[in-house]
Amino acid sequence: MSNPKQLSVQALQWNGHSLNVLDQRLLPETITYDEYRDAAGVTEAIASMRVRGAPAIGIAAAYGVVLSAIQHYPANDWQERVATDIAMLAASRPTAVNLFWALDKMRQQLSVDNPEPIAALSQLAQQIHQDDIAANHAMGERGADILGDAKAVLTHCNAGALATGGYGTALGVIRSAHQRGHLQNVYADETRPWLQGARLTVWELAQDGIPATLIADSAAAWLMKSGKIDWIIVGADRITANGDVANKIGTYSLAVLAKQHGVKVMVAAPSSTFDFSLETGDSIEIEERNPKELLAECYLDPDSLVNAWNPVFDVTPAELISAIVTERGVVLDPGKHGVRSLQC
Amino acid sequence: MSNPKQLSVQALQWNGHSLNVLDQRLLPETITYDEYRDAAGVTEAIASMRVRGAPAIGIAAAYGVVLSAIQHYPANDWQERVATDIAMLAASRPTAVNLFWALDKMRQQLSVDNPEPIAALSQLAQQIHQDDIAANHAMGERGADILGDAKAVLTHCNAGALATGGYGTALGVIRSAHQRGHLQNVYADETRPWLQGARLTVWELAQDGIPATLIADSAAAWLMKSGKIDWIIVGADRITANGDVANKIGTYSLAVLAKQHGVKVMVAAPSSTFDFSLETGDSIEIEERNPKELLAECYLDPDSLVNAWNPVFDVTPAELISAIVTERGVVLDPGKHGVRSLQC
Repeated sequence: MSNPKQLSVQALQWNGHSLNVLDQRLLPETITYDEYRDAAGVTEAIASMRVRGAPAIGIAAAYGVVLSAIQHYPANDWQERVATDIAMLAASRPTAVNLFWALDKMRQQLSVDNPEPIAALSQLAQQIHQDDIAANHAMGERGADILGDAKAVLTHCNAGALATGGYGTALGVIRSAHQRGHLQNVYADETRPWLQGARLTVWELAQDGIPATLIADSAAAWLMKSGKIDWIIVGADRITANGDVANKIGTYSLAVLAKQHGVKVMVAAPSSTFDFSLETGDSIEIEERNPKELLAECYLDPDSLVNAWNPVFDVTPAELISAIVTERGVVLDPGKHGVRSLQC
Repeated sequence: MSNPKQLSVQALQWNGHSLNVLDQRLLPETITYDEYRDAAGVTEAIASMRVRGAPAIGIAAAYGVVLSAIQHYPANDWQERVATDIAMLAASRPTAVNLFWALDKMRQQLSVDNPEPIAALSQLAQQIHQDDIAANHAMGERGADILGDAKAVLTHCNAGALATGGYGTALGVIRSAHQRGHLQNVYADETRPWLQGARLTVWELAQDGIPATLIADSAAAWLMKSGKIDWIIVGADRITANGDVANKIGTYSLAVLAKQHGVKVMVAAPSSTFDFSLETGDSIEIEERNPKELLAECYLDPDSLVNAWNPVFDVTPAELISAIVTERGVVLDPGKHGVRSLQC
């Protein structure tokens, strides 16, 4: 295990011929990178949540396409084979649109006549990766501007370096705000059933020396009532044209509670998260994972007859969001304006 | 392990000379009763949450006083020694008032000049136990009347047979409503960090053949938005004169969310839960347990430097409650009326 203090956390490491994926299910105890050499492996890494977070799975999928091209080029039908792998990667998870956005970009490049197609695809995947990091830093600054001198915030799930190319969306804003010296405490909720808040966010913040306090998900309302937080800051898995936001289950709950307590809600997400083909969040497919996963996380026999309902995302209406922050700009009160102003 | 299908679930079994306490931390896998022969043991069983649930810890404490009397009678200072043990029992947990209510009754009996004091104390403790079961059945019928033909409800934590003398408060209402044939599904949330919903409530309901569906705590708002539930039904640890209700952390969150979604909230609790000495819930001491307990439940090193905030109760304002159900009667809209009408 590397010394965490020395580590610049990276969910994904591209080696030119393989993709190293940090197995986030083992954090924080164990830092293990698994090496993937084909698209099937990357698909499994996404579906099993070894890598998770909307931007990160988009980047991982882009590298998966490169691995597919390396495997199949220069067979006569290599482009068809890569297209088949793209379809496989696209079926790994349904909700985060960054996945489909990245695969679309790769598919377009695949159709370009190029004497060095692998180099071109590899360059594009790396560009997607680098652009995401740059977007995070830009969002960090914009978000910190909005936070002003806010002293304490709550974040949900993990929208940090681990969920992105690096630096983070919500945690990028928190990092930037902390560097400015105002932010004194970051509350992170557990984020059941996978505990991304407890096991990823708290760990990431500790790496950077940012004071973090873990709470149970159901303590968030009581925290708000105590007046201890000014903002809730989250990432997003998909944002529709009207400003509705799909994100980790529990985000909608926090946003409703925030409204009732005068706490503001910021969503930080790169433009790859926007789905302008959908008018509202009602059209977003919400992933429901196997109920057995929820039972297992409660130490219950997954093969028992206990029933469970395990949606892993929800949709927060734009009306409950105070600010959507992207690398292209900010929309305040998206419930009034939608987010079409951010469309290219 | 007994066959659960054969088992009438009892948190507490009194043998005349010792108290058997079901270790609820081991459910549902293991049904183990630990035998206690003194007040110190019972105090530890309450503090460590082997037995939990406001009415159940009141009953356990009453039996603890009997054990103290058995141990110390007829020493010259036996009453002083028992009074010391009563103070120890009272310090086991701070929020549930049933504990103090039961100890007050035992203290009064202790001061009565009686030729057979142990028999008198034992009789009183058993009366407290039996009265609680009878109260649960009465509440079950009253609550089921109010539910009418509601098809689905959500319950939080465990307010069942395990939390009481038997039958349950919230689960008593659910049992009675299910017997009437209307109730088709009971959602139970996990209730972090101790998972009383996942590990106790779902198990209790399964014993009775009542269809139960487990959800993550943070999925409750999304469940309400889907229109899947009509009522939220919970127990209580303390109810003040204005109708404010202290209960398991997360209850306040659910009540705020319910209001926003047109879902009604029922609190079922015996009269021993009422604290008419407090005007509002602001005066209730809210237990905060060791942050290390929360870390451990997230598989994190309890001795790490990670900070956590671990309140285990919250207070729901009367305004957010549709009905408070007791064995003495029902108060609808307690936010308008308070609950003094239920005072003897």
